[in-house]
Amino acid sequence: MSLATLDVSQHPNLPQSSATLFAAKAQKKVTFEEIAKVVGRDEVAVAALFYGQAKASPEDIKNLSEYFGIEHATLEQQLGGFPDRGKSVEWPPKEPLIYRLMEIVQNYGYAYKAILNEKFGDGIMSAIAFSTHVEKEVDKDGVTWVNIKLRGKWLPFTRF
Amino acid sequence: MSLATLDVSQHPNLPQSSATLFAAKAQKKVTFEEIAKVVGRDEVAVAALFYGQAKASPEDIKNLSEYFGIEHATLEQQLGGFPDRGKSVEWPPKEPLIYRLMEIVQNYGYAYKAILNEKFGDGIMSAIAFSTHVEKEVDKDGVTWVNIKLRGKWLPFTRF
Amino acid sequence: MSLATLDVSQHPNLPQSSATLFAAKAQKKVTFEEIAKVVGRDEVAVAALFYGQAKASPEDIKNLSEYFGIEHATLEQQLGGFPDRGKSVEWPPKEPLIYRLMEIVQNYGYAYKAILNEKFGDGIMSAIAFSTHVEKEVDKDGVTWVNIKLRGKWLPFTRF
Amino acid sequence: MSLATLDVSQHPNLPQSSATLFAAKAQKKVTFEEIAKVVGRDEVAVAALFYGQAKASPEDIKNLSEYFGIEHATLEQQLGGFPDRGKSVEWPPKEPLIYRLMEIVQNYGYAYKAILNEKFGDGIMSAIAFSTHVEKEVDKDGVTWVNIKLRGKWLPFTRF
Amino acid sequence: MSLATLDVSQHPNLPQSSATLFAAKAQKKVTFEEIAKVVGRDEVAVAALFYGQAKASPEDIKNLSEYFGIEHATLEQQLGGFPDRGKSVEWPPKEPLIYRLMEIVQNYGYAYKAILNEKFGDGIMSAIAFSTHVEKEVDKDGVTWVNIKLRGKWLPFTRF
Amino acid sequence: MSLATLDVSQHPNLPQSSATLFAAKAQKKVTFEEIAKVVGRDEVAVAALFYGQAKASPEDIKNLSEYFGIEHATLEQQLGGFPDRGKSVEWPPKEPLIYRLMEIVQNYGYAYKAILNEKFGDGIMSAIAFSTHVEKEVDKDGVTWVNIKLRGKWLPFTRF
Amino acid sequence: MSLATLDVSQHPNLPQSSATLFAAKAQKKVTFEEIAKVVGRDEVAVAALFYGQAKASPEDIKNLSEYFGIEHATLEQQLGGFPDRGKSVEWPPKEPLIYRLMEIVQNYGYAYKAILNEKFGDGIMSAIAFSTHVEKEVDKDGVTWVNIKLRGKWLPFTRF
Amino acid sequence: MSLATLDVSQHPNLPQSSATLFAAKAQKKVTFEEIAKVVGRDEVAVAALFYGQAKASPEDIKNLSEYFGIEHATLEQQLGGFPDRGKSVEWPPKEPLIYRLMEIVQNYGYAYKAILNEKFGDGIMSAIAFSTHVEKEVDKDGVTWVNIKLRGKWLPFTRF
Amino acid sequence: MSLATLDVSQHPNLPQSSATLFAAKAQKKVTFEEIAKVVGRDEVAVAALFYGQAKASPEDIKNLSEYFGIEHATLEQQLGGFPDRGKSVEWPPKEPLIYRLMEIVQNYGYAYKAILNEKFGDGIMSAIAFSTHVEKEVDKDGVTWVNIKLRGKWLPFTRF
Amino acid sequence: MSLATLDVSQHPNLPQSSATLFAAKAQKKVTFEEIAKVVGRDEVAVAALFYGQAKASPEDIKNLSEYFGIEHATLEQQLGGFPDRGKSVEWPPKEPLIYRLMEIVQNYGYAYKAILNEKFGDGIMSAIAFSTHVEKEVDKDGVTWVNIKLRGKWLPFTRF
Repeated sequence: MSLATLDVSQHPNLPQSSATLFAAKAQKKVTFEEIAKVVGRDEVAVAALFYGQAKASPEDIKNLSEYFGIEHATLEQQLGGFPDRGKSVEWPPKEPLIYRLMEIVQNYGYAYKAILNEKFGDGIMSAIAFSTHVEKEVDKDGVTWVNIKLRGKWLPFTRF
Repeated sequence: MSLATLDVSQHPNLPQSSATLFAAKAQKKVTFEEIAKVVGRDEVAVAALFYGQAKASPEDIKNLSEYFGIEHATLEQQLGGFPDRGKSVEWPPKEPLIYRLMEIVQNYGYAYKAILNEKFGDGIMSAIAFSTHVEKEVDKDGVTWVNIKLRGKWLPFTRF
Repeated sequence: MSLATLDVSQHPNLPQSSATLFAAKAQKKVTFEEIAKVVGRDEVAVAALFYGQAKASPEDIKNLSEYFGIEHATLEQQLGGFPDRGKSVEWPPKEPLIYRLMEIVQNYGYAYKAILNEKFGDGIMSAIAFSTHVEKEVDKDGVTWVNIKLRGKWLPFTRF
Repeated sequence: MSLATLDVSQHPNLPQSSATLFAAKAQKKVTFEEIAKVVGRDEVAVAALFYGQAKASPEDIKNLSEYFGIEHATLEQQLGGFPDRGKSVEWPPKEPLIYRLMEIVQNYGYAYKAILNEKFGDGIMSAIAFSTHVEKEVDKDGVTWVNIKLRGKWLPFTRF
Repeated sequence: MSLATLDVSQHPNLPQSSATLFAAKAQKKVTFEEIAKVVGRDEVAVAALFYGQAKASPEDIKNLSEYFGIEHATLEQQLGGFPDRGKSVEWPPKEPLIYRLMEIVQNYGYAYKAILNEKFGDGIMSAIAFSTHVEKEVDKDGVTWVNIKLRGKWLPFTRF
Repeated sequence: MSLATLDVSQHPNLPQSSATLFAAKAQKKVTFEEIAKVVGRDEVAVAALFYGQAKASPEDIKNLSEYFGIEHATLEQQLGGFPDRGKSVEWPPKEPLIYRLMEIVQNYGYAYKAILNEKFGDGIMSAIAFSTHVEKEVDKDGVTWVNIKLRGKWLPFTRF
Repeated sequence: MSLATLDVSQHPNLPQSSATLFAAKAQKKVTFEEIAKVVGRDEVAVAALFYGQAKASPEDIKNLSEYFGIEHATLEQQLGGFPDRGKSVEWPPKEPLIYRLMEIVQNYGYAYKAILNEKFGDGIMSAIAFSTHVEKEVDKDGVTWVNIKLRGKWLPFTRF
Repeated sequence: MSLATLDVSQHPNLPQSSATLFAAKAQKKVTFEEIAKVVGRDEVAVAALFYGQAKASPEDIKNLSEYFGIEHATLEQQLGGFPDRGKSVEWPPKEPLIYRLMEIVQNYGYAYKAILNEKFGDGIMSAIAFSTHVEKEVDKDGVTWVNIKLRGKWLPFTRF
Repeated sequence: MSLATLDVSQHPNLPQSSATLFAAKAQKKVTFEEIAKVVGRDEVAVAALFYGQAKASPEDIKNLSEYFGIEHATLEQQLGGFPDRGKSVEWPPKEPLIYRLMEIVQNYGYAYKAILNEKFGDGIMSAIAFSTHVEKEVDKDGVTWVNIKLRGKWLPFTRF
Repeated sequence: MSLATLDVSQHPNLPQSSATLFAAKAQKKVTFEEIAKVVGRDEVAVAALFYGQAKASPEDIKNLSEYFGIEHATLEQQLGGFPDRGKSVEWPPKEPLIYRLMEIVQNYGYAYKAILNEKFGDGIMSAIAFSTHVEKEVDKDGVTWVNIKLRGKWLPFTRF
């Protein structure tokens, strides 16, 4: 089984922590699923953290430092700030897997809006008070499916 | 409770069927949830059909025609072809609800890719062999959450 | 004193309600400040409503209908749905007044982020659970200043 | 509490002073609020200065040099010129916190214009003769709010 | 001598006043120079007014109405509001004359900035507290030159 | 008084001569006005030369070499070719001072065209057979104004 | 042999004269070569005039009016002003023939610049003091070639 | 007379051969016209080769190697592959000389198409089976003109 | 089985012939495969002709006129000119089927270039001297495959 | 015969494996056709692998390592992860060979869609469950043609 890796020359604008963490992951040859258990977070969140898109708590830094044998001070210095999100994916994406996720939004965007408006009123689903989870499913015909769950707080527009 | 409507002047490039169907919906004052029961499809699929983003089967056309009292020939002429998808959402979207869905892809795009690659190998989640469903959740603290489920077939890249 | 008006040929993609309301406003020769008192909302919210960027409550529709002498059914049909936001301002804006607001975000964007992160943690200021208010100030030297207040709920990123 | 930091690999086009100042800030482990007291300026202005978006006075340079123990000549050479603004935020922004500020302008741009025109006449709010301030508010229900104040000189279009 | 005219099919998003005024100008066969004398404003300002880029005073409306024999109420309704600037020139411009003006900014932008910063400090030349004037020059060799004068108030960045 | 400087990390695509010249200028602590006297050219032209937007004559190279004590061969190698214009300003510009110059073209572009066409016929003002000059003005009320003069040869479209 | 025609629905932003002239051309079934003889101009210039990209002289209007039997007043009203160039070709062009012309500039742009700079000095080839001509060539092997000649005045950059 | 040179910091994405060749050219102080004689190709082709936009034959490599005293193996390694065209000119071009060439295509694109269609039928002028040549002309009034000849094979669209 | 149709409101910039032909096709309820037999051309070519992307010969016009019962003069007037290609697909495409074709070029573009260069030398595959054909394949496992064949003339770059 | 090579300065964002593999290929002086035989894959797939657009199996890595004499550990580290597709071709492409492939999609996109919809129903041709093959053809007149075959699984839109 192959592991997700990072080629820094393809992502020159990711934070230094991304290079550090992916190098450690490659050396230890572990999956995000395994790391997620160590950190106690969802694997998508852990991958996002590796790509500089999620905040590491002091506990996360400690766990990752110990697990990978990275000097704590180094990791703290690289991961201790606030994520500067939005620098991982070029937009619009040319990566086929990411494109299809975007295409779902392109095709069903107004359908989601119509359904959510009728069900919840005038507002949005938060992408901040938000979590997501991925599951693998093999149906009875042996076909493999991806299930992605998005769960976001409903935020009604304030009337003012 | 308000209903989702369509203002044609805001969407000059939607198909004629969109105008026809939304006008009928506004007149009958029904939600997509109610229409979905009549058509026997998920409400997101029905809303997508109204926005010209999903194919109507002959049965769908018959059901919609009868339910809304739209002449069958008219609806068949407008809905009988193949959807010309991608004309509903301007891109990048400025609509706040749709933007946040896109932002989830922007922020978690590579995290999803890494997780899916490690779980499934080299491939993509199909946006075609795909379904989606929306659910409302009120948690024990009375907070309202949106749950969106995306389910797509896993397509491995062909080795050639 | 001049009044804010709408020239539909300059804004072909605004909802029909915008044309209806601005025409009524021009005929009655009233400012947004005056309308705001009738509707009982902030004048920025009322102007946003006129531009199709805010939701009208049933009460708003009733008040506007009576105040302007617009048939209630017409206004309800045009304003009863959910706003399809994002169709008023072309982006990036060429309008000088709007550009300068955008420029403030361009120049101070990361400064705001740094300050807010240090004061509140990892999160965002909501643009949905949000209100805004404009005030005129003439200082002791007779210089006129604009004060714009933005008040948004702080939303911390969910840890997952 | 985490501190705002700068990862130079994410911001290759900021001035050298940004790297110098953020490195010193990280080493001394101080917030912008603390630095602002030393410099005697608003914390947003100080953060903007760190991001190369505001001018440092000779006094600022002296204060920062002493406070952080950076050689005065170095800081003067890096901060002594005029800011070359606009190189901090990619545009349109993908950073969620910054995006929402932009979204406020997108959604309320014409509403602000209409209100300001009716209150002040034909002109703009200056983004140059301008100051801004951020405040934290916890309301009686314990909900946290961000308050951003924008104060700009009103500039009427010259009639010629 | 040819006159500047407006072909509405080329400029569908100009205000209605543009069509009205240019039609009247074409019928009366007058230059902007002549109109400028009637209105008592610079001819560039008058042309800008015709393109919907400058505010008309009540006096301007009265003068234009009388001069062109346009019904006062019509012109007041079309010109009485505030200009919604930025809808005349597509950007970047493909029109050769306008492109060259933009090219001057592209080529000399930082040179102007450097000179103005050294002469005036940290600030900008206002495009609002601004006037401009065009003059024709034929030099001693019979060569024809255009002279454009830009005069804008210097606005220093506020220190805060 | 501050001096205009160049931070190479903000302008990675300027020619090497820009780095050389700005470093020398910073070291000698001179304004463009002073350099202009040495070179015998307008200060805007000199600044443009520093930004790689104007051609240096052999005499210019000699003068600059002597004045700044830069080895003649080095400067000749860096400045002896032809300018590769257009690499200084990102477009559209986010720098506020440069943006306002562009905004003048956006707002008054067609007004200039109309006036120039009526005064000169069908053609353009050259940006090549062109010079520009900046002057500071303090009016009788003590208000500071920038005056920018643009002088370009009129080029009529060839009839063929 | 087919004739070049104009389908207005494909070019909604061309001037009215384009519709008028192309309709007359289609009715009279004549080529641009034939029209060029009547007007006494190069056929490329005449086609450019039909597309609203070249100025018609009073004589041109008279000739075209007589030749096509279009009322003189109509044609004068539509063609009497100054061309508003740049509205015929969307940019970048998707039309294959036009794309290839653009590609020549993309591929050989810097080669032309280098050659012209060495042959003529620092300047440009004017696109205004400019003419162009097309010729058909069949070589000795029976292969058909297009020859396009571009002739533009050399404009040296003014030293100032 | 100045020579065309290359500043690598302005063109970071040109092939290594460009740096090698331009450095040799600068050292030997020769024009493209002189090099063209050595290589036996048109000077535009040679300049294109220097910019990585044309293929070098083994003979070209040998000639250039000998003429400039560049080690043959080095040049062969750098020039022996196939050009990866399109990386020299940013698009749209801001360089004034290149812009004007593009502007000719913008202004006369459809005129060329109409003329070529009527003269040759449905097809395009090839930019591949293509050559170009530049000539200097001084007319009887002493005015200097550039003549650029484009010669491309006519390719009719295949009927299928 | 559904038929491909055209909704003009989704494609406002197609030629009039597209509306005429698709309306006739919808009324006669025929597939492109059937029409292709009548016209004697490949079905892709016929569909391209319906979308205004291929030239109709006089024979095609006659055949289509007779087959669909469209007045010959009407069809000749609409189809007799030269296609103005490139107005059918917005770019980049949001239509999922068309996007995937583009994605193949994005992913395999340089692979094709490398293979073609090594097999054929320096040149391109013509998109003009070009034909294409689509075939349906059901493999032994009952899986359905699309086969698209692209056949283009190899055009070597001219050495000059 | 020339070989396809990679100039890293032209492709700074390709993965490290691209530099490694292309350097080895240049040194060994082999074509993709020869490498393809060693790897046992189609030559387009091999070229795609070199450009970081296809996954290498452990067997591929072993074969390439042995064939080129690259240390296995190095190649495994560089090629062992999942391709991060979409970083090879800038978009839209300026490379002429790649552009023409894109142009085929631009011109025939809706024609393909119409034909595929009528032949297969509502769905897409997969670019993932996909293979492609290139063949050289010399016809009886000695003309050289490229044949590109695209074979993708048909994916019907799921009805939900």
